[in-house]
Amino acid sequence: MAGNTFGNIFKISTFGESHGPAIGVVIDGVPPNISLDESDIQKDLDHRRPGQSKITTHRAESDKVEILSGVFNGKTTGTSLALLIRNQDVCSKDYEDIKDIFRPGHADYTFQEKYGIRDYTGGGRASGRETACRVAAGAVAKKILEEQGIKPVAYTLAVGDIYAKKIDLDVIEKNIARAPDLDVADLMIAKIEEAREDCDSIGGVVEAVVKGCPAGLGDPVFDKLNARIAYALMSLGTVRGIEFGAGFAATKMRASQHNDVYKKEDGKLKSEHNYAGGILGGISNGEDIILRIAVKPPSSIAKEQKTFDIEGNPQTIQVKGRHDPCICPRVVPVVEAMLALVILDSLLIQKTIQ
Amino acid sequence: MAGNTFGNIFKISTFGESHGPAIGVVIDGVPPNISLDESDIQKDLDHRRPGQSKITTHRAESDKVEILSGVFNGKTTGTSLALLIRNQDVCSKDYEDIKDIFRPGHADYTFQEKYGIRDYTGGGRASGRETACRVAAGAVAKKILEEQGIKPVAYTLAVGDIYAKKIDLDVIEKNIARAPDLDVADLMIAKIEEAREDCDSIGGVVEAVVKGCPAGLGDPVFDKLNARIAYALMSLGTVRGIEFGAGFAATKMRASQHNDVYKKEDGKLKSEHNYAGGILGGISNGEDIILRIAVKPPSSIAKEQKTFDIEGNPQTIQVKGRHDPCICPRVVPVVEAMLALVILDSLLIQKTIQ
Amino acid sequence: MAGNTFGNIFKISTFGESHGPAIGVVIDGVPPNISLDESDIQKDLDHRRPGQSKITTHRAESDKVEILSGVFNGKTTGTSLALLIRNQDVCSKDYEDIKDIFRPGHADYTFQEKYGIRDYTGGGRASGRETACRVAAGAVAKKILEEQGIKPVAYTLAVGDIYAKKIDLDVIEKNIARAPDLDVADLMIAKIEEAREDCDSIGGVVEAVVKGCPAGLGDPVFDKLNARIAYALMSLGTVRGIEFGAGFAATKMRASQHNDVYKKEDGKLKSEHNYAGGILGGISNGEDIILRIAVKPPSSIAKEQKTFDIEGNPQTIQVKGRHDPCICPRVVPVVEAMLALVILDSLLIQKTIQ
Amino acid sequence: MAGNTFGNIFKISTFGESHGPAIGVVIDGVPPNISLDESDIQKDLDHRRPGQSKITTHRAESDKVEILSGVFNGKTTGTSLALLIRNQDVCSKDYEDIKDIFRPGHADYTFQEKYGIRDYTGGGRASGRETACRVAAGAVAKKILEEQGIKPVAYTLAVGDIYAKKIDLDVIEKNIARAPDLDVADLMIAKIEEAREDCDSIGGVVEAVVKGCPAGLGDPVFDKLNARIAYALMSLGTVRGIEFGAGFAATKMRASQHNDVYKKEDGKLKSEHNYAGGILGGISNGEDIILRIAVKPPSSIAKEQKTFDIEGNPQTIQVKGRHDPCICPRVVPVVEAMLALVILDSLLIQKTIQ
Repeated sequence: MAGNTFGNIFKISTFGESHGPAIGVVIDGVPPNISLDESDIQKDLDHRRPGQSKITTHRAESDKVEILSGVFNGKTTGTSLALLIRNQDVCSKDYEDIKDIFRPGHADYTFQEKYGIRDYTGGGRASGRETACRVAAGAVAKKILEEQGIKPVAYTLAVGDIYAKKIDLDVIEKNIARAPDLDVADLMIAKIEEAREDCDSIGGVVEAVVKGCPAGLGDPVFDKLNARIAYALMSLGTVRGIEFGAGFAATKMRASQHNDVYKKEDGKLKSEHNYAGGILGGISNGEDIILRIAVKPPSSIAKEQKTFDIEGNPQTIQVKGRHDPCICPRVVPVVEAMLALVILDSLLIQKTIQ
Repeated sequence: MAGNTFGNIFKISTFGESHGPAIGVVIDGVPPNISLDESDIQKDLDHRRPGQSKITTHRAESDKVEILSGVFNGKTTGTSLALLIRNQDVCSKDYEDIKDIFRPGHADYTFQEKYGIRDYTGGGRASGRETACRVAAGAVAKKILEEQGIKPVAYTLAVGDIYAKKIDLDVIEKNIARAPDLDVADLMIAKIEEAREDCDSIGGVVEAVVKGCPAGLGDPVFDKLNARIAYALMSLGTVRGIEFGAGFAATKMRASQHNDVYKKEDGKLKSEHNYAGGILGGISNGEDIILRIAVKPPSSIAKEQKTFDIEGNPQTIQVKGRHDPCICPRVVPVVEAMLALVILDSLLIQKTIQ
Repeated sequence: MAGNTFGNIFKISTFGESHGPAIGVVIDGVPPNISLDESDIQKDLDHRRPGQSKITTHRAESDKVEILSGVFNGKTTGTSLALLIRNQDVCSKDYEDIKDIFRPGHADYTFQEKYGIRDYTGGGRASGRETACRVAAGAVAKKILEEQGIKPVAYTLAVGDIYAKKIDLDVIEKNIARAPDLDVADLMIAKIEEAREDCDSIGGVVEAVVKGCPAGLGDPVFDKLNARIAYALMSLGTVRGIEFGAGFAATKMRASQHNDVYKKEDGKLKSEHNYAGGILGGISNGEDIILRIAVKPPSSIAKEQKTFDIEGNPQTIQVKGRHDPCICPRVVPVVEAMLALVILDSLLIQKTIQ
Repeated sequence: MAGNTFGNIFKISTFGESHGPAIGVVIDGVPPNISLDESDIQKDLDHRRPGQSKITTHRAESDKVEILSGVFNGKTTGTSLALLIRNQDVCSKDYEDIKDIFRPGHADYTFQEKYGIRDYTGGGRASGRETACRVAAGAVAKKILEEQGIKPVAYTLAVGDIYAKKIDLDVIEKNIARAPDLDVADLMIAKIEEAREDCDSIGGVVEAVVKGCPAGLGDPVFDKLNARIAYALMSLGTVRGIEFGAGFAATKMRASQHNDVYKKEDGKLKSEHNYAGGILGGISNGEDIILRIAVKPPSSIAKEQKTFDIEGNPQTIQVKGRHDPCICPRVVPVVEAMLALVILDSLLIQKTIQ
């Protein structure tokens, strides 16, 4: 019902179409007295920005953010914080000839069915461009979490069937695939370029870990921390599945294995393998929160595909415009942003209990 | 934040501990003029009830439901509907000797960390017993959906590594594993009994399909239908992952395959393989909604396990009480209930747009 | 939209019809580790209970409350708290002959228009009986506030045109009118009895003060503390208006008078006359919160009145049943309960900022 | 908790400080396929705009609105609608010398207590300037309501003790006091000018009527239509009280008078005097909704006042800047906007029941 609003205490409302005048976000519930300026947000936007490497879309958006409210003399005031990003590289005419055609794999048909109208330029509101607003809001959340030693980190675990073989968080930003394994990164990049050369695209897996999350976050029985995270990440258009800790592998385990006996480390309880992914009974247990999402191959491809138009006539289509052959590297900052939003919100909620 | 409240228009608030006096649910937003009596709800509760077969827990609860409000002369009035179930077979003394011990795989530790107190009898609020209230509320939702030809159906797709080889919805209720494949059901049952004989338990996969769901449900960009469903199902204590349509398999596909070209059937657009699971851009497209959840092995086992107590001392524990060696068969009605709650809520929200 | 749900963090969902099997409330968001038993709640219910004096209805309800969940070994656990009150003195046949007639001043017509169905026995959900659940939930809130030195107190300021001439909080419970002025109480009681003898009823004014409320509660720009309180109290069926501090008298003042110059008392800023009623810019300022509500004369009277039935035919009606000739004395505990709910909720929200 | 968010289905989030770069609003839940352009919104903003007559503030803001999203080819698309208004006439230096002083009657002290920081330029977020965003959002709501024949109309009923003697809706826009009585308007205007000449300000009463509202809106027991309206209007910084229908006068009535016997008009039930103000049991009954709000004298006056600074030292202050000597005429469009927001939201909610 709150289609464009997310969160409970730290609550964001986003707006904007891919080829409209601007996109942006209003954040309600920002804690006061946090130092904040545009650069804090810009650096995360640059991280998500199109056109940053040879394996991303070539759309040229500087994604320059402007703070419109909620900050006074360099500090948040506790009032609503508005962030604005003007669209720049808008090629609406790329879309004129497909305005009555449903692109396969896209939300064209469902938006039309739901609303009886749709903005067909660049996917309108269904475009991944809206995630820039999530990243902008997430940057504010990340800054607040950082002060408490909490940090969400995401990376490309797999491109197609090429999986990272080790997890080294320090190398993620050292390769354009954002893989945690430099030895495998080149294979991933090759896989992506191969897909693009075939006028096609490829899926992958993004894994994320939240470091430093305290025990006690999450609100059973419905608003469990893993439920909140699943809700947050499944709302990304590109995600087809999510699993925590052992995930689907747990379905083949027995409890004597999966229960994951506690050990003691630095006076705190720790589980042996973190099969639970840092969350038990829907509440964080103080260990790393760990999860993976299934990222589908981007639907916009230059290859000719069969489809239908709004009148029900068969059509063939080649999706023009500038698109990503694999979205994993650019999903990474969005996943981090959504995790930051959920964790901060849960942390603020937990303050009402303590 | 709304830990015990779920839904937007059709909104439920549940209460009750495993070994307290009663459990129950208040439903706000029930459409008026629906015929309803206790039997409509009782039949779904009987479906979830403990003690119904040799592969479920032997706890004897009749789960008899009483309607306390919201129904007048056999019809709903639009006012809040309260359902009450008294607990009967309560063995609190089974738990007295573990009141200071954290059971591995359970929420004992996290509840203690979150609230600074916990009801240790039978898991208290963290017990799967709370799902009876979801089933009761879901029964009301299912009745309303049924009149519109919408029906969620779930079944045990796998127990451990034993997978159903075909999907025949008609046989689900003809075997105690609730498998859609009679040929495989016995293997599944044997797998479960084997786990129990070893004082252990086993995981599995539950698949669900929603039949008859109209196009247009779900509210981008955050409150997408798949996001809502993921939130609903991940809030079940036993679930470790969820995937829609092609799910994690999509990560290895290219778009030319995954885009799943439209065909026309009875004048409506249909995709070839339903890789999207009936949802595109977060909005239902009128096809079957299809998803799978990863069900972990139940944490309560009779096998001796190592753990710690509240003072930080090492302990060994054998979890007494009566427990399920595989929860899949009893999760099936809970999944159907949660799906009914989400779909009905989304349907009511969509009425505000039309 | 949340018709039967109230509050944000400390959130209540009430249910029950006047002549159904039971009424009750589920409270989500109860802070853990609060000592609580039935007697804490019962004493407030006894305060609101029908039949407590010669100037209230004679319906005999003991309003015995049962705690169904959320309390373990005498302490709240942070899980949802359910309270149940069985109805006892139900005379549904009193209402059989008016089932198709719209009682003047009642919600019969509007419930029928809204829902297309209504429970006509005793007003169903529209009966003031639902306020018992507010009082029960409010008792829990009051207990928590009390520990922080916060206390809402209400009293009958006027019955018809008979106004209290002084405010002595100590005498409120020493007279059945719940007036703060013993000299005037008898006049008020006489006024009420006179109305009853005429088969009629009379209105009045209830004033309330919240003592000990800290500065900083309330969330501009929409969720201001006075807005929340107005929402809470205007939801009582009997209330026709509300004013804070100087209220409607402020409309005739100039700012040089109304601005209410600050003075210093015990090192804290205080205003001279508290014209603002303890709230500035929607945020509590640490002074007494003070407000008044307009209470209408109860609509159920034995006097013959003209009206129409559901078919549109003219009818005359004498409302049978047992009713209050002036509801002010019994509204007093309900107002205190609603104030406690709002203040506690605002206090918990403010913890997210600090 | 949702400090800057208002509404359930038609949900607005506003932002912006009086002297910051911009103010604006994001509307979630806008019905699709509504014709809308900037002029629809501009005309209502012009109605509220400062500097429009000799009895309003002289701050020169054109309040030019820009639609940033949610409209495509002149029609709403059902996605979030963002409206932006740049601030122009910003004189922050007017406020530099009062940055540490609490202005009497203002929210300076309470914002400081709540957030530990405040934007002291022009009142920051506590300025009445935020109401421009309410008016902008309300203009969208009004347009949708208009198509269904529903229209909220407000007017200045009284300035100080000068009351309109008749209600002629046609003359409201024909006098700068926005009085419904031309004979009295000049007296009101004189009263306002007199206050200004004395470096002071004056309060008043604004009355509003909603024409054409269908029966059935409002959601008992908490979210009653009058409760929603009271919440909406009490959230205006200038309002000190609200009453519906007979309001506080009802406290002196008996039920035989106040019950307001039904008559039949054009086949529909109508009450004799509409003492209930168009709402019974919290649900609209199809008659005019009628209410009055108490408007305080604006706190910013040029007269010298005593107060304290943030260090607790006594100070005298003359509030500079450009201020309204009576806010009633400019509150009128804000009241209409808030009523439109509530009625539309309630109407959309009611669609879920029908």
